[in-house]
Amino acid sequence: MSLSRFRSGFAAIIGLLGLATTSMPIAVHAQTAASLTATQSDPRKLGWMTGFPPPDDKVIRFTDSDYFAFPKSRWTVCHFRELMPTVGVSRGPGAAVPFVQRIDPGIDAIRFTPLGGGGAMTWQQAFDANYTDGIVVLHKGVVVYERYAGCLDATGQHGAMSVTKSLTGLLGEMLVAEGVIDDNARVETIVPELRQSAFGDATVRQVLDMTTGLQYSEDYADPNAEVWTYSAAGSPLPRPSDYKGPRSYWEYLKTVRKQGEHGTAFAYKTINTDTMGWIIARKTGKSVARLLAERIWSRMGAEQDGYYTVDSLGTPYAGGGLNAGLRDMARIGELMLEGGTINGKRLVPKTAIDRIRAGGDKAAFAKAGYGLLKGWSYRDMWWITHNEHGAFMARGVHGQTIYVDPVAQMVIARFSSHPTAGNAANDPTSLPAYSAVAEYLMTRP
Amino acid sequence: MSLSRFRSGFAAIIGLLGLATTSMPIAVHAQTAASLTATQSDPRKLGWMTGFPPPDDKVIRFTDSDYFAFPKSRWTVCHFRELMPTVGVSRGPGAAVPFVQRIDPGIDAIRFTPLGGGGAMTWQQAFDANYTDGIVVLHKGVVVYERYAGCLDATGQHGAMSVTKSLTGLLGEMLVAEGVIDDNARVETIVPELRQSAFGDATVRQVLDMTTGLQYSEDYADPNAEVWTYSAAGSPLPRPSDYKGPRSYWEYLKTVRKQGEHGTAFAYKTINTDTMGWIIARKTGKSVARLLAERIWSRMGAEQDGYYTVDSLGTPYAGGGLNAGLRDMARIGELMLEGGTINGKRLVPKTAIDRIRAGGDKAAFAKAGYGLLKGWSYRDMWWITHNEHGAFMARGVHGQTIYVDPVAQMVIARFSSHPTAGNAANDPTSLPAYSAVAEYLMTRP
Repeated sequence: MSLSRFRSGFAAIIGLLGLATTSMPIAVHAQTAASLTATQSDPRKLGWMTGFPPPDDKVIRFTDSDYFAFPKSRWTVCHFRELMPTVGVSRGPGAAVPFVQRIDPGIDAIRFTPLGGGGAMTWQQAFDANYTDGIVVLHKGVVVYERYAGCLDATGQHGAMSVTKSLTGLLGEMLVAEGVIDDNARVETIVPELRQSAFGDATVRQVLDMTTGLQYSEDYADPNAEVWTYSAAGSPLPRPSDYKGPRSYWEYLKTVRKQGEHGTAFAYKTINTDTMGWIIARKTGKSVARLLAERIWSRMGAEQDGYYTVDSLGTPYAGGGLNAGLRDMARIGELMLEGGTINGKRLVPKTAIDRIRAGGDKAAFAKAGYGLLKGWSYRDMWWITHNEHGAFMARGVHGQTIYVDPVAQMVIARFSSHPTAGNAANDPTSLPAYSAVAEYLMTRP
Repeated sequence: MSLSRFRSGFAAIIGLLGLATTSMPIAVHAQTAASLTATQSDPRKLGWMTGFPPPDDKVIRFTDSDYFAFPKSRWTVCHFRELMPTVGVSRGPGAAVPFVQRIDPGIDAIRFTPLGGGGAMTWQQAFDANYTDGIVVLHKGVVVYERYAGCLDATGQHGAMSVTKSLTGLLGEMLVAEGVIDDNARVETIVPELRQSAFGDATVRQVLDMTTGLQYSEDYADPNAEVWTYSAAGSPLPRPSDYKGPRSYWEYLKTVRKQGEHGTAFAYKTINTDTMGWIIARKTGKSVARLLAERIWSRMGAEQDGYYTVDSLGTPYAGGGLNAGLRDMARIGELMLEGGTINGKRLVPKTAIDRIRAGGDKAAFAKAGYGLLKGWSYRDMWWITHNEHGAFMARGVHGQTIYVDPVAQMVIARFSSHPTAGNAANDPTSLPAYSAVAEYLMTRP
């Protein structure tokens, strides 16, 4: 395998792993065959990997360059572990704590106006418009809406993409609240290997809030963008004989150069999250996968084990590697809504959740230029709307979402496989829909 | 990557996946560094993959040719999913049904004489002599002995190697008992793709009992042995550009040529089990992983999800790919001991278990020439001792074991990482130990 083929092969891996392309303000990459509707691109309808064995033209292999290109991506989002190495996030031997379910038949008909205009749309119409694979709405902890499509059902698992970051941030802020990590400490004092890198003189706080100044581009149109090197570093696949680059996520982080100053502007760059993963591992002696399992997953009444994709060192991809069941993602939202408790158990100090919900530096956020997210901020790898309900989100490419509305006491967890990675493509038919359902639920008992 | 490098890289994968090298009667391959004792080769002591990140000389990567060579193998047996793609075996959302535990302090001192002579040894001494990673003894369903070492603990998972075959066989015999599969049917009537292969005119029964006549060598000393082609076929790794061979387990099976006649002699060849996996999938519309989860794993009170390694089509490796917690392997033993029930629930028809326990054709077995297993037989991919207790076993390379003794009402589940793959290396200090503990337990209440 040549080096060029090796590198190009990672276009897919990058997408797969949910690197930030799509959460970036400008670059919204349309993908091939994007004109297919949700129904037309249904992976069950297209027959990907169906049959024993599947017919040759229905096979999706990790080594295919298009395994994560739309419409194949609509199968792949539910099957990452069948394609690459992973590490588990155990829920432990106990029973799941099932949600109470009282489906509200009125939700499908709720109407909203998409951002940027266009005709009104119903919640039900938005489901397919956003290529939704599954959505759960909790109101006061009760499931009032739940629907699956595509490759997903209630027992399946789906890539959380960059929603993973918010869990890394939650663990980080939890450790700050517990005094394990000093968020004013410089990164080099915790991970000396990063002393010569841009992260060395950044504080943990700057890493958590992504206000570091880093020479790091995730522009896929640029063949010299650093994201290519990072993706190759994180690959679990064999290296070509002429490969000279870093061989793990962390090895890459050591090479990152500074650009600008830390602490002045928000810039969404995945490598901050993996640096935070390294800080957490060094301080606790546990990977983010293990810490998440011990502190949260095994204590929140989860229905399924989760898992992370890993690099060739077995390091879980803190920036985008989590896969889980949808209801368990809703449990994370409920944990956030309840200020760190769930099922009457405290898992995370309230101060940690309060700090996240309070949000970050709005002026620093504004510099990133997200046209659809005016007035928002970013804190501990969560997106804070600062709307009247104090809503906040975890967001991942292709539409992965945890949306928490404290005033409406509502949590929405969504997995999807929108053909366009960038959430700018689905925000217009998602964010106002969430607000409309929140308003509706506030009229309900 | 050159083709020769690609092929040689699979030496490790073969070992990893538990192909039959070692369960073969003659070829017992010593591996490098085998002179290290269990204590000396303890993976925690050697520090494999310890630290964030591990030091370079402690890293084990899937792409290293020696990742499954002793002593690295003692780490790898617990971490297969971190190295390669897998598919899950879910235990479902319920609570595990914990074992009652009444540890019998007398067991460690039980003495036995190893096969082939040598001085008497205690059960406790045999633990390290066999490079045991974990062992659980159940008596009348109660845990009377449980001990872990190496990479394993009660919450960890370990490769079951060819013990996997016995689960494939159990599923197969279950489907026969239920009338879903006719074991007298010729394989070609169920999987027409195999018509031109050696399997075409074999019966399901011959496949289940491995009395097929196949041109298939698992002799690693022979570079032209078919096992190399099979292993390359099952690899999840990218193919070299000059690779022309089969690209999945099942694609390989279509190429197997006949040698001798079916139904005359037992010959332990892993490809029978993957053929059985194909038959099961075709008949049920479910992979062995899914069927195992639905019919057994989610209903037996399991403590952990299991998983299978998969090929590049996502096909679970029915011949050797299962990984699971040790206590859950003990539950499989208990299910067999109780004739298909566990925790008062029937999971498998009693007739299926009865047929397995009755054993296969002793004369056909004798032709395979296993010096240590005289008088045994092989039925439904279980090894039947035909001893006075009617004991029967699931056996996998490097010492993986489920041992069921109906008279003593005893189940032993063992995971280990013996430096020698072939069980002929550990049988002398294992089989008489099992018998000795059985005799001891029969004197207990």
